[in-house]
Amino acid sequence: MAYKSPVRDFTFILNEVLEIDRYTNQPGFQDVSSDLVGQILEEGGKFADEVIAPINNPGDKEGCHWSEGGVVTGPKGWKEAYKAMSEAGWMALAADPAYGGQGMPSIVASAFGQMTAGASAAFSMYPGLTSSAYAGIHASASDEIKAKYLPKMVSGEWSGTMNLTEPQCGTDLGMVRTKAVPNGDGSYSITGQKIWISAGEHDFSDNIIHTVLARIEGAVPGIKGLSLFVVPKYLVNEDGSLGERNTLECAGLEHKMGIHGNATCVMQYDGAKGWLLGEEGRGMNNMFVVMNEARLGTGLQGLAIGTAAYQAAAEFAKDRLQGRSLTGPKNPEGPADPIIVHPDVRRMLLEARAFVEGGQAFILWTALHADLEKSEDEAVATKAKDYMGLLTPVLKAYLTDKGFHVASLAMQVHGGSGYTEHFPASQYLRDARITMIYEGTNGIQALDLVGRKLPAHGGRAIMTWFGEIDAFVAENGANEAIKPFVDGLADAKKKLQEGTMWLMQNGMANPDNAGAASTDYLNVFGLTALAYMWAQMAKVAQAQVESGSTDPYYATKLQTGRYFVERILPDAGAHLAKLKTGADVLMAMPAEAF
Amino acid sequence: MAYKSPVRDFTFILNEVLEIDRYTNQPGFQDVSSDLVGQILEEGGKFADEVIAPINNPGDKEGCHWSEGGVVTGPKGWKEAYKAMSEAGWMALAADPAYGGQGMPSIVASAFGQMTAGASAAFSMYPGLTSSAYAGIHASASDEIKAKYLPKMVSGEWSGTMNLTEPQCGTDLGMVRTKAVPNGDGSYSITGQKIWISAGEHDFSDNIIHTVLARIEGAVPGIKGLSLFVVPKYLVNEDGSLGERNTLECAGLEHKMGIHGNATCVMQYDGAKGWLLGEEGRGMNNMFVVMNEARLGTGLQGLAIGTAAYQAAAEFAKDRLQGRSLTGPKNPEGPADPIIVHPDVRRMLLEARAFVEGGQAFILWTALHADLEKSEDEAVATKAKDYMGLLTPVLKAYLTDKGFHVASLAMQVHGGSGYTEHFPASQYLRDARITMIYEGTNGIQALDLVGRKLPAHGGRAIMTWFGEIDAFVAENGANEAIKPFVDGLADAKKKLQEGTMWLMQNGMANPDNAGAASTDYLNVFGLTALAYMWAQMAKVAQAQVESGSTDPYYATKLQTGRYFVERILPDAGAHLAKLKTGADVLMAMPAEAF
Repeated sequence: MAYKSPVRDFTFILNEVLEIDRYTNQPGFQDVSSDLVGQILEEGGKFADEVIAPINNPGDKEGCHWSEGGVVTGPKGWKEAYKAMSEAGWMALAADPAYGGQGMPSIVASAFGQMTAGASAAFSMYPGLTSSAYAGIHASASDEIKAKYLPKMVSGEWSGTMNLTEPQCGTDLGMVRTKAVPNGDGSYSITGQKIWISAGEHDFSDNIIHTVLARIEGAVPGIKGLSLFVVPKYLVNEDGSLGERNTLECAGLEHKMGIHGNATCVMQYDGAKGWLLGEEGRGMNNMFVVMNEARLGTGLQGLAIGTAAYQAAAEFAKDRLQGRSLTGPKNPEGPADPIIVHPDVRRMLLEARAFVEGGQAFILWTALHADLEKSEDEAVATKAKDYMGLLTPVLKAYLTDKGFHVASLAMQVHGGSGYTEHFPASQYLRDARITMIYEGTNGIQALDLVGRKLPAHGGRAIMTWFGEIDAFVAENGANEAIKPFVDGLADAKKKLQEGTMWLMQNGMANPDNAGAASTDYLNVFGLTALAYMWAQMAKVAQAQVESGSTDPYYATKLQTGRYFVERILPDAGAHLAKLKTGADVLMAMPAEAF
Repeated sequence: MAYKSPVRDFTFILNEVLEIDRYTNQPGFQDVSSDLVGQILEEGGKFADEVIAPINNPGDKEGCHWSEGGVVTGPKGWKEAYKAMSEAGWMALAADPAYGGQGMPSIVASAFGQMTAGASAAFSMYPGLTSSAYAGIHASASDEIKAKYLPKMVSGEWSGTMNLTEPQCGTDLGMVRTKAVPNGDGSYSITGQKIWISAGEHDFSDNIIHTVLARIEGAVPGIKGLSLFVVPKYLVNEDGSLGERNTLECAGLEHKMGIHGNATCVMQYDGAKGWLLGEEGRGMNNMFVVMNEARLGTGLQGLAIGTAAYQAAAEFAKDRLQGRSLTGPKNPEGPADPIIVHPDVRRMLLEARAFVEGGQAFILWTALHADLEKSEDEAVATKAKDYMGLLTPVLKAYLTDKGFHVASLAMQVHGGSGYTEHFPASQYLRDARITMIYEGTNGIQALDLVGRKLPAHGGRAIMTWFGEIDAFVAENGANEAIKPFVDGLADAKKKLQEGTMWLMQNGMANPDNAGAASTDYLNVFGLTALAYMWAQMAKVAQAQVESGSTDPYYATKLQTGRYFVERILPDAGAHLAKLKTGADVLMAMPAEAF
């Protein structure tokens, strides 16, 4: 069973649901048409399926190799796939044309990203981290630094990383100890240890451009004393050629439950030469630009693994003969029926699929708003920025939770086979689990949502979003054919509103109430977001069915969406009831009683 | 952080909640007192903590070794631990005194089993499978065969296995192809391949006694043509000494996501000599005795892994310094507060703990009924048998689902550390996942519950159980101090009753409705069972608090239970809503659309 990029699902969402042809007046969309996007996704899907997917499972089994002196090599064939990806220009897809990029909107890059992450989550981290480092440099560096590093990162000749975590701090970066001492020539000497550095060292690219969070000697303690630096593996000469090796090294690789093909490095900086990105003391602000992108990328990755896991489970369920249908044999000539005849097997598959397809739409809808942030129409840009702030933690946490849940369902469909490493289910489950943790644990996302994003600008973002949903409900409330979708959305939104009110009334008085409610609140939010996506998809699919389309795609979409409404949305009530219980039940117990 | 067997939790449940001193008039309990049980559990806990727990994680990293000729060796130190366990008499704990056993009731063995499975799930499978094979032989074999095999299995000199699965069949054992040909001397020649045979081959014991499901030449196809055989690795001479090697071999080991220390074998039988256990064609009936025990053992195992995972997470949360409390520093002298100050971290820990402690009580309450099945009082025995039938699938599926959920929460508390193999969280997660699959997938358990167990004897079992809960609610409804527990139980039971009614009305007409509802129904059942356990525990703990006990154990118990009522029970309503949606949403889509 080979992974197949869901090209049709993406063109459905982009071209039929979001109707990207409407946006040609927006920056980045001038040359974008639904035809062009269709072609790009066809080609991208082919690349993901044929070049990346085949190396995924072998790479999991082989892992990465570290040897004395900090030399790291990836699994067999990964270097070649990385070169192929660079040479085909995929690294440049959404990059700035000023540095050799193709300047496609985020929404296209996001669809391609889902295809590569589904093909191999571990592999996709190498271009993914390059893209994050690119974003960090692009957002904050001087023109000189940009000109020096970005073109070769865009071409894929050089790759990139993000260096934040240290042994004593992950979530709480205020405790960063890595030190930067000015050399007097505009450069700094960086010294310290960074851990869990994805793609920190490998043999795929000629140079690795590290972005490193460090404290300039004498700077204040805490977050405000941090600055961001670019620290290349090989120093770059004036003419752009590679100079001497910088004094940094991969001191070892982490042994992890999954993403074995990703080199997760301990990085040792021993007076390595680096250059400031942006201003002193603004390291965290600069890093947040990158982290927000990386959070979206992580949500995408978690869900994309779920997509691949669903595909494997559906194939298995259609092939595996075992037992008979509860309503009489469906394969009477065979020794048994395929297990897909069983309602409970279908329940697992449809649950997986409803999250996967709803999540795909949520990712692309969000990516559209990332593009609209750049709109010259201030109202459009403000709304887009508000949405990005509000929805980034929801997308990251909700879709990674569900990606893992889907991977677990997919393993369950496989039965005992799924637990062995002969089938891909184990790798998907193991790989998906990290997405709930890195780029800010899902608990941190929930706290960011309730503590920072929700109250920003007096709650403007969520009020706008509620207004948009209300308008959709009002506009489509009379459409009998999609009534369950519209009603489900209205009900979820009502519950989210109730949860929001509860937070306003109880979270201010006692911040622990906000913390206690945060994860359940985020779940109600995620359900509402997916209900909105499903209602939009159902509307389009229903119109196609009504206009006589014989393409079974639309009927299947409506069936899958119906599962979401009937069998997933009821969780909203349970989460609302839980969030309203408050902090007392959590905080009453003394720490030593745990 | 070392695993510590929850001795206090078990003595609380056995001695204070279930009050086992009340049962001295029941078979097996004559010599049992709460004092004796306390001593046994203390000793057992010490053994699990000091002998078994230390080999668990090294065994995961090393795994088992297979070499040409089918020789299998376990991880370093495991053979010695198995010998130590045998020599200390732990294998004999609940075995029949007629064969050298100590004849302790199941309830004591079940507590000890939870301690060893928490210490090492993979290791505990070796004695666990021996115990299953013992049960199969004990229940169905002739006196001669019993005398030949059981004493050495009870002493631990010999171990045992269950051989059911073949490549083409796991769930659907009617398709078993392994063949048995009568040799004319009372023995049979067994030929075929069995897969996923836990503890199928190893170097821990002098002989391995396989119980094997096979079809006697000429028998009818399907389930009714199957018979059960005992097939020893070494033939046993008349005087009990070991004779020649039987013609069976381990052809290889499975590579699995977890339980690496358990040798999961492909077993090849090439005309191996075996002897019939019980009657011809009654193989599945005989195997079901064993499978029901094994299902309870699997539920226990899943939950026990959760117990260990919770302990590791709680320790980590108290140690790890990161960030500050939302309500101001709690460790102002330190660089940061321990993460246990955060409501969302406590949410994860309390959720884990509420399932663990509720599940422990459910396991022991069920084990008590396994003992009462042997009562000479017919009413007591009938009720106990009814309960065992009804609750075995609930216990297996619900507690393994929750064991895995707890292991995942425990990893989340660890953050990135948990994803590395330096901490135990990954092993717990990987080990726990199999318990949802083997001994009948949790979907099969749900189908067994709604299709077989619920309607048995006209629904007598569940009516009795509802009556017991109603009586508890009536008796304790006026106890204001535990009102939330009693109300929560009454509400969950009401929902379960509503789900049961729905099944009666809709499952008969269309069996797919029963299948479609089965997993959600089982979840409402599991929630009700745990609500009943928590209400009983709360009653005892509250009485202690009211009588002035200064032991913080009781206050902590009430706090943990409060989490269950406020933050877990709300799921019952969501599951009920889902189960009532029926089969149509699942069955409407054609198989090829998946």
